[in-house]
Amino acid sequence: MESEMKKTEQQKVVVAVDESEESMYALSWCLTNFFPKKTNSTLVLLYVKPPPPVHSSFEAAGYMFSADVNKAMEKYGSETVNSVMQRAEAVYRNFQTAINVERVVGCGEAKDVICGVVEKLKADTLVIGSHGYGFIKRVLLGSVSDYCAKHVKCPVVIVKHPEEK
Amino acid sequence: MESEMKKTEQQKVVVAVDESEESMYALSWCLTNFFPKKTNSTLVLLYVKPPPPVHSSFEAAGYMFSADVNKAMEKYGSETVNSVMQRAEAVYRNFQTAINVERVVGCGEAKDVICGVVEKLKADTLVIGSHGYGFIKRVLLGSVSDYCAKHVKCPVVIVKHPEEK
Repeated sequence: MESEMKKTEQQKVVVAVDESEESMYALSWCLTNFFPKKTNSTLVLLYVKPPPPVHSSFEAAGYMFSADVNKAMEKYGSETVNSVMQRAEAVYRNFQTAINVERVVGCGEAKDVICGVVEKLKADTLVIGSHGYGFIKRVLLGSVSDYCAKHVKCPVVIVKHPEEK
Repeated sequence: MESEMKKTEQQKVVVAVDESEESMYALSWCLTNFFPKKTNSTLVLLYVKPPPPVHSSFEAAGYMFSADVNKAMEKYGSETVNSVMQRAEAVYRNFQTAINVERVVGCGEAKDVICGVVEKLKADTLVIGSHGYGFIKRVLLGSVSDYCAKHVKCPVVIVKHPEEK
């Protein structure tokens, strides 16, 4: 059965990050548990910005890869993207790992974009906080993590911030 | 932030196992991803048997620990417990790890027993297949993994069998 899955060293792990403390904790958890030292694993930091009030067909379901992050910042407003990615980078720098890090910035409904990116990247694992992306939306529509756990094919790690009740 | 969580070496990981191929895959996934060689981690194999038609107050929400597994087999019928635990042991033997393994046999509603055991053991992570514990029940009541992801405090890994559509 071991041969059915890739070895630990080759894992591609997507971590959905947002403004929440919980998502940073999820990233920290992931680095503690998935990335032993000396590894060829890839950590993909995925930030999804809500869709703008007026959609273009591109923006509605778009996501862009590392090289385009600067372009994404221009397009979606650099402030939040920048601040989330900087916090995320501070977390993984703290671990002093030599893993590969990719940054993906998406725009649209978080649940759809996350599932889309996981599929496109053929990720091995998705790590996500349990309560990201807004309280009201969660109550009305169910949580993003629930949706992703049901819809992506790879294992999903749902991380709750320990201080949460 | 690293200091907030235990180091990888001291993790206690509960894996919910049942008759399904998916739960064995979840165990295999867990061994591949959580247990690097030379570790003091503890793997807890948790099997929950449905409650018997006539309840005693003990049996309704009971679970018992390794030393009592033989007693559990007498009480609940040894056949399924035995076969699930043997399959699980075959999976982890295949990995040739030196991790500590504990076996816990519970009886009752899977979702309640799993959450109870995770809390009682102060587990660091729960690993569970997405679709265990019966199709009909899942449709009527929602999946056990959904429930556990919402109710336990530790990170939950939901593993889908890759062959599943």
